[in-house]
Amino acid sequence: MKNRKEARWTRAVEDHQAPSHSLFDSPQTFCYAPRRFTARCDEITFTPMNIKDYLEQKRVEVDRFLDSVSPPATTAPTTLHESMRYSLLAGGKRVRPILAIAAAEAVGQPSPGLMPIACSLELIHTYSLIHDDLPAMDNDDFRRGKPTNHKVYGDAMAILAGDALLTMAFDLISRPDLMKGCDPARQVRLIQELAYGSGNMGMVGGQVFDIQAENQDIDLPTLQNIHKHKTGMLIRAAVRMGAIAAGAEDRQLDDLTSYAEDVGLAFQIADDVLNVTGTREELGKNPNTDAERGKKTYPTFYGAEGARKLADDCVARAIVRLSPFGPAADPLCELARYITSRKN
Amino acid sequence: MKNRKEARWTRAVEDHQAPSHSLFDSPQTFCYAPRRFTARCDEITFTPMNIKDYLEQKRVEVDRFLDSVSPPATTAPTTLHESMRYSLLAGGKRVRPILAIAAAEAVGQPSPGLMPIACSLELIHTYSLIHDDLPAMDNDDFRRGKPTNHKVYGDAMAILAGDALLTMAFDLISRPDLMKGCDPARQVRLIQELAYGSGNMGMVGGQVFDIQAENQDIDLPTLQNIHKHKTGMLIRAAVRMGAIAAGAEDRQLDDLTSYAEDVGLAFQIADDVLNVTGTREELGKNPNTDAERGKKTYPTFYGAEGARKLADDCVARAIVRLSPFGPAADPLCELARYITSRKN
Repeated sequence: MKNRKEARWTRAVEDHQAPSHSLFDSPQTFCYAPRRFTARCDEITFTPMNIKDYLEQKRVEVDRFLDSVSPPATTAPTTLHESMRYSLLAGGKRVRPILAIAAAEAVGQPSPGLMPIACSLELIHTYSLIHDDLPAMDNDDFRRGKPTNHKVYGDAMAILAGDALLTMAFDLISRPDLMKGCDPARQVRLIQELAYGSGNMGMVGGQVFDIQAENQDIDLPTLQNIHKHKTGMLIRAAVRMGAIAAGAEDRQLDDLTSYAEDVGLAFQIADDVLNVTGTREELGKNPNTDAERGKKTYPTFYGAEGARKLADDCVARAIVRLSPFGPAADPLCELARYITSRKN
Repeated sequence: MKNRKEARWTRAVEDHQAPSHSLFDSPQTFCYAPRRFTARCDEITFTPMNIKDYLEQKRVEVDRFLDSVSPPATTAPTTLHESMRYSLLAGGKRVRPILAIAAAEAVGQPSPGLMPIACSLELIHTYSLIHDDLPAMDNDDFRRGKPTNHKVYGDAMAILAGDALLTMAFDLISRPDLMKGCDPARQVRLIQELAYGSGNMGMVGGQVFDIQAENQDIDLPTLQNIHKHKTGMLIRAAVRMGAIAAGAEDRQLDDLTSYAEDVGLAFQIADDVLNVTGTREELGKNPNTDAERGKKTYPTFYGAEGARKLADDCVARAIVRLSPFGPAADPLCELARYITSRKN
């Protein structure tokens, strides 16, 4: 009875999802970087661009937009709004919104509502950090170089600020004033992508896999499964949402989805490596916390250098999928490279 | 500078919201039940119906639907899905989904996707209970006659189950397989109603007002403000979403919004009274917790009997707004009456 019910449920989920992608569905394959990928990647010529300038420009735009749509700290309930703004405007890298914007640019069509769409991802990311830092979860004291939300506002307010930011993501993307000009059918599809990528089968599911793996002698496929969900699904949603907002065709969406899956893996591996090799100043939080918690990460299996090589392989494979887009995908290409070279 | 920014933000919020309603915006007025309301209410004749049968039938339908769309406990991450199901399928009264369904019936037009729309409200309600019961919040051990979620699954899993249920509400209402036939523009409007009613300016905001009032010598307007947000906004969203799903005209939506605002207040006052007068068996949780926490509630200001009378006045006023709908609004009428007469 249970099995039949499960089959029915799984089918229902599959029915309403975009076609699955072999690479993402078989995480076992991703740690090999076949020579042809690397070779093909080297053949692509990109217009030179300064990724730091691009990132900085987009980051400023994202920050400005987030500030403008966040409830002022003077509006009641003031403590809630202060707490939301404290974490949301704490100077994050804005990787997810920028990925969404760059994906829309790669497709190259007008994308009404792109900024609220992109920023909805940052709201989800920020809420997950606030809840993740709670004493009941990772019990972290520092985040982005500042005391964590609950250290400043208390646990209750941190829980509620997280809930409010999560809800605000869906508010933003459904507000008629901000989303003017976006086709409603496309808008619903974007909301579905966001919900699926961040929920029980996406990011939240990944956090549960992650918690359950603590102090366990996990194998590589288990580690890959954690990464795929915890970090991968929201990065996948970011790129797909940008592409959908710009009216990507199925084939373009397939290419960009594959790109996102590899970039998501590279991002998490790089994070694991930074946790081992970074300083508190570079990271804005305490380093080496994974080892202290008995967490197995990529460096546990491959060493820091081996893990870094794996991340580079992922990036190379991701870049190959961008060739059909030409120079319009330069920012996505540089973003992929930046992700493994960053220091925080 | 701040004031101008706040004004701009407030205006932006107002712009994208439905017209405000004087009763709801001036909570000070609602505790008086003008004679004409009571008189007009008595003049309305409703077809007799058995509200208990209606509630039971709808409750079974809602439960069945929630069960069918909830991830099976055998699907990974199993503990998360077990924890979500534990609270979601714990036998709640399903007041919010039933209000949405009854509002759609009052309008009387076909409402594709009504069940996922209605059940999204129960997902929001359930997540808020899980988070509210956490040790960092109300620290409650029992809910709906069973140990609270964190007592069974631990604090971390309870936080994540709440996050997943919140996200699932927006997943449900944007799933193409479940929402087939619903006009996408209407769907976006429904998502906006849900987000607004449950977020920082709605339910979550109300929870913050509530926490801040603990052990404070609050006055009546402050208490009304808490109730308006904490319980009122989601009940308002429930009725409005049902009405919008059925294609309500502006005037119908106005009437049903007023109905919802009065019913929401009645519901919370009745809850406060039950907290004083109910037994643990009736409530499924410990009684008199408000007084123990030093919370001022309606019975503090009016006594249990006076508060009950106030709730009755709200119900009478709510029912008056149903007269344009005729017998189609019988369930809404009976639901309003049931809300103040219930024992849990």
